[in-house]
Amino acid sequence: MNLAQALFSPKAVALIGASGDAAKNTARPQRYLKKHGYAGKVFPVNPVRKEVLGEKAWPRVTDLPEKIDHAYILIEDVEQALEDCGKAGVAVASIFSGGFADVGAEGVKRQARLLERARVLGVRLLGPNSMGVIDVPGKLTLSVNAVLEMPALPAGSTSIVSQSGTMLGTLLSRGAARGLGFAKLISVGNEADIGVGELVELLAVDAATRVILLFLETVRDPARLAAAARAAHAAGKPIVAYKLGRSALGEAAARSHTGALAGSDAALDAFFQDCGIVRVDMLETLLEIPPLLIGRKPMSLKRPGRVSAVTTTGGGAATVVDRLGLRGVELSAPIMDLTMAGSNATYAAALEKCLQSDCDAVLAAVGSSAQFHPEVAVEPIVNAQAEKPIVTFFTPQADRSLALAAAAGIAAFRTPEACADALAAFFAWRAPRRQEEGELDIGGLQGFDLFTRLGVPVADWAIAEAPDYRHSISYPVAVKRLEAHKTDRGGVLLGIQDQQDLQKKAATLDAKRVLVQRMESGLAETLVGYRDDPVVGPIVVVGAGGVLAEVYRDAEVRMAPVSEGEAEEMIARVKGFAAIRGYRNLPRGDVAALAKAVAAVSRLALAKGRPVLEAEINPLLVKASGVVALDALVAFRGAA
Amino acid sequence: MNLAQALFSPKAVALIGASGDAAKNTARPQRYLKKHGYAGKVFPVNPVRKEVLGEKAWPRVTDLPEKIDHAYILIEDVEQALEDCGKAGVAVASIFSGGFADVGAEGVKRQARLLERARVLGVRLLGPNSMGVIDVPGKLTLSVNAVLEMPALPAGSTSIVSQSGTMLGTLLSRGAARGLGFAKLISVGNEADIGVGELVELLAVDAATRVILLFLETVRDPARLAAAARAAHAAGKPIVAYKLGRSALGEAAARSHTGALAGSDAALDAFFQDCGIVRVDMLETLLEIPPLLIGRKPMSLKRPGRVSAVTTTGGGAATVVDRLGLRGVELSAPIMDLTMAGSNATYAAALEKCLQSDCDAVLAAVGSSAQFHPEVAVEPIVNAQAEKPIVTFFTPQADRSLALAAAAGIAAFRTPEACADALAAFFAWRAPRRQEEGELDIGGLQGFDLFTRLGVPVADWAIAEAPDYRHSISYPVAVKRLEAHKTDRGGVLLGIQDQQDLQKKAATLDAKRVLVQRMESGLAETLVGYRDDPVVGPIVVVGAGGVLAEVYRDAEVRMAPVSEGEAEEMIARVKGFAAIRGYRNLPRGDVAALAKAVAAVSRLALAKGRPVLEAEINPLLVKASGVVALDALVAFRGAA
Repeated sequence: MNLAQALFSPKAVALIGASGDAAKNTARPQRYLKKHGYAGKVFPVNPVRKEVLGEKAWPRVTDLPEKIDHAYILIEDVEQALEDCGKAGVAVASIFSGGFADVGAEGVKRQARLLERARVLGVRLLGPNSMGVIDVPGKLTLSVNAVLEMPALPAGSTSIVSQSGTMLGTLLSRGAARGLGFAKLISVGNEADIGVGELVELLAVDAATRVILLFLETVRDPARLAAAARAAHAAGKPIVAYKLGRSALGEAAARSHTGALAGSDAALDAFFQDCGIVRVDMLETLLEIPPLLIGRKPMSLKRPGRVSAVTTTGGGAATVVDRLGLRGVELSAPIMDLTMAGSNATYAAALEKCLQSDCDAVLAAVGSSAQFHPEVAVEPIVNAQAEKPIVTFFTPQADRSLALAAAAGIAAFRTPEACADALAAFFAWRAPRRQEEGELDIGGLQGFDLFTRLGVPVADWAIAEAPDYRHSISYPVAVKRLEAHKTDRGGVLLGIQDQQDLQKKAATLDAKRVLVQRMESGLAETLVGYRDDPVVGPIVVVGAGGVLAEVYRDAEVRMAPVSEGEAEEMIARVKGFAAIRGYRNLPRGDVAALAKAVAAVSRLALAKGRPVLEAEINPLLVKASGVVALDALVAFRGAA
Repeated sequence: MNLAQALFSPKAVALIGASGDAAKNTARPQRYLKKHGYAGKVFPVNPVRKEVLGEKAWPRVTDLPEKIDHAYILIEDVEQALEDCGKAGVAVASIFSGGFADVGAEGVKRQARLLERARVLGVRLLGPNSMGVIDVPGKLTLSVNAVLEMPALPAGSTSIVSQSGTMLGTLLSRGAARGLGFAKLISVGNEADIGVGELVELLAVDAATRVILLFLETVRDPARLAAAARAAHAAGKPIVAYKLGRSALGEAAARSHTGALAGSDAALDAFFQDCGIVRVDMLETLLEIPPLLIGRKPMSLKRPGRVSAVTTTGGGAATVVDRLGLRGVELSAPIMDLTMAGSNATYAAALEKCLQSDCDAVLAAVGSSAQFHPEVAVEPIVNAQAEKPIVTFFTPQADRSLALAAAAGIAAFRTPEACADALAAFFAWRAPRRQEEGELDIGGLQGFDLFTRLGVPVADWAIAEAPDYRHSISYPVAVKRLEAHKTDRGGVLLGIQDQQDLQKKAATLDAKRVLVQRMESGLAETLVGYRDDPVVGPIVVVGAGGVLAEVYRDAEVRMAPVSEGEAEEMIARVKGFAAIRGYRNLPRGDVAALAKAVAAVSRLALAKGRPVLEAEINPLLVKASGVVALDALVAFRGAA
């Protein structure tokens, strides 16, 4: 029995710590398995009861009369339970109990010890702190999640991996209320062993799964998740992520909740895009977007997405369109507004006209008829036979119409904002990027020498020493104290005209050795950076330089390395570069040279052993022809 | 019978053009009035039928046996119907028919003629293009809106004025599904006569109304709406606006839908804040926010709002908190996370602790128990006796709990985004601003002279003429061609050192008369502007100067005039001014002098007859001490 079978289709499960008190959380899995028709065998394990909820109970897993595929550990003494599972040959143990990496440094150590034992014992772990596993079509409800109080679970082809166990229930509950069904739902908890990446691997080859949703608070296994996402893409299964930590406040909340770094949001955006994961901004979008993605591939548009729209409510369609505008999506034609004039025939004809028009997707909005007369406008939508994606926004409370759309595989949205969010995310969706191979030898080079090796032009420089500060750089020059921090305005002398000027002024720097650089002038200051992000790994950044750009956080991030073409796409997205793109007839800067520099710096990701933690050229001066680095920093792994 | 009585509590209504075909839109008002129990008399008017839907019909309004308070015109020949209404002494006519300002220039003229006749005839108009009026407690359903197919309407104290008739139905439908009730709902259509402002006046004194919601696509009567909003504030009735047109795309959609300018979104923000209207960003927030506002006054905080939070789902609370962070709201303490440990007692105690803590509002999130066990966490919330606002986010599908919260007057949100939107809007809510009185005499002054009169320091300047270009300004100077456009980089000579230098270089400008200005240097370039906005009236703008700031749209807008204190608040909100606020130890600029200049320019709003359409100082140079205007433009009303 492989991992997927043990996790999702166990023939026998043990509930270690199953409570005889039906009101307790730890009594739930047994109740739920029975209630939802699990066909395998369930063995309650409880040292003090002979019977639990009407079933024979066993003191320990080692006492059970059959081989257990999947045990759910519900007690505090997880360690003892794991030892027993090992002895009994249990394939996988899901752990509900917390008190591990979720509770601080001591817990982290406890978790590490637990994982070590699990490896020795040959038991795979889900959790700790996991609300368990649900397989709707397979009728496995090995979970404490109270959502399973629902009388019946809706089956479908959407699977979910969630770092929040309760939010797994939220999605299932909300989906059920409107006819959206699910395949497998997994609460990963602390991910001591089985993580999001490995689960995505399993779902990528799961016949019941057509789309994979991720509710994330962090990314603990970026490399494995990225590889799994590529495999899912190859298998035609889109992945959608909702991730907490867009704001510093949310990042802190996620961290305290999971005990893990949430990571820089921009870096995570880059990561998701890199491996073809669709990122949605709003929670309900995660639930509502699957029909828009199932069976489709990324359009990877090089221009804004274009939508055409038909509606029975002008105001209703405008609420979506207003939001689309904020997200950079365009309308291919004015909204076809059938307010108070909609009939089945007129709506169907208008919808067909939209579908035939030069657009990438069609927005079909419906007003009050969605509540009382689905035959007017909802029917033409659900009956449309179209390759082109249709998304619907029903303005009233329209549960029946939402269910009709779900049954027809049409993406239907409860709010205009989620509708626009989904369209924007769909258009932003990219196929996973091909990963550059190769290895870069950076020798032991540091500072300017390293950037020169990478191929980034650096302003002519030399080190000059007191008392005469002689050097070979042609005047005029800039002089900097070597230890001066780049953001500190002291310690820098500009426009030194000759040797005499230099000797006079260098004394004021109070430094024996100074950096002498040729003065350069250009059209714009930019920042080019590289970072081995602690969450997602190597990223490259390009942004406008200077204080204002820093204040506006105007920079573009991608996973490193990037090609020159990709660097050009990044540059095109930095607003402040308008000034070197010909805005208001300002002189154009050498964007190609800037792209070349960005690509060059990004190749630090290929350096053997990835020794560079962080590197930054600030400023990199963009000239009418060429670029030149004026200041740079490099930080190495393991350096103090 | 006054206007409010005729509109909302007519003793007799006429339905002009009532259809005998029950399937037609124009048959609806008669059906709906009967269905929802209207107690007054209903007279169908139809020239070709003796009977309509079982009621005696009359050929014309003038034939009716009784005085009609409120007629609903459902036919195309609105003009004839209006004449009849006039003859019959009808107090108010609502007009469903379109074909007026909603369809272009000819329609605008037709509407103007209609209004003129209505005034002559003494008939007040609602519409054209109005879906009518609903008074839920009063059982008046004089509307074609299909939402009235609902078996029963929920009564409450929330009234709505909407420029979209269909969205009125949307709000009523969605509210009904979760126990949110309404008082009066009015579809204003084209607002030929009775507009949003007048309706807010009526609702401000309406005993059944405690909060007023506005669904807006434009603002047609800003002065009257502002005055009405002040009256509503004085009466303790909060007003909330959802307004389309945040994006250019939405603005265009709203314009094509209503035939009216949507207006600059930043100017509308300023307008709403000025008169104490709460603006929400998301559609569902409009529906969900009332319990948070009813009975409360603006906190008018000078610091970020602070929230404390309790939850039975860590992930669920984090979805709200993440969003709060994006909106500048803070947490006063870490989230109290009772995941899987919540009981009625623990939740109640934690909630009480939150309420007692140093925060402005409490977020109470509830997971799956909200769906199946409201007694766990929802009950403590709805039973809490607290002055301090509590908002709730129930993560699962939880209709019963939403209704419990509604009944208890607790604001409950279906999505984390709307929950955060409501809290952010609540904290941003300000009491209406006191309006400055007084009148400013600007004589016939123009250009720099006008700004000097206002009290804004202007760089010493003179006009110099060819051939010798003599002047009295001390060197160094800048020289500009008089007709040079400020954004055109040609036509400006900087750093002219002496008379000889000037004569030599001025020749290159190819101009007989040039502007000579003393060279000035400072710490930052800023833009200070004034505009008589076509939608909301006089506004003042301050922003960072230069190309980058223009690209980033980093400017703050307020209704003019503003005091120096208010100008300082504006300046504090411009991100790019970080550079003169001491960011990274950069030298501080004279923010007080900048504020003085902003206030001075804003006083153009007080000029007799408001002759100035637009005025802009760009740049206004901020120095370590003082400010100085280097370039300025003024455009007058009626100028070519």
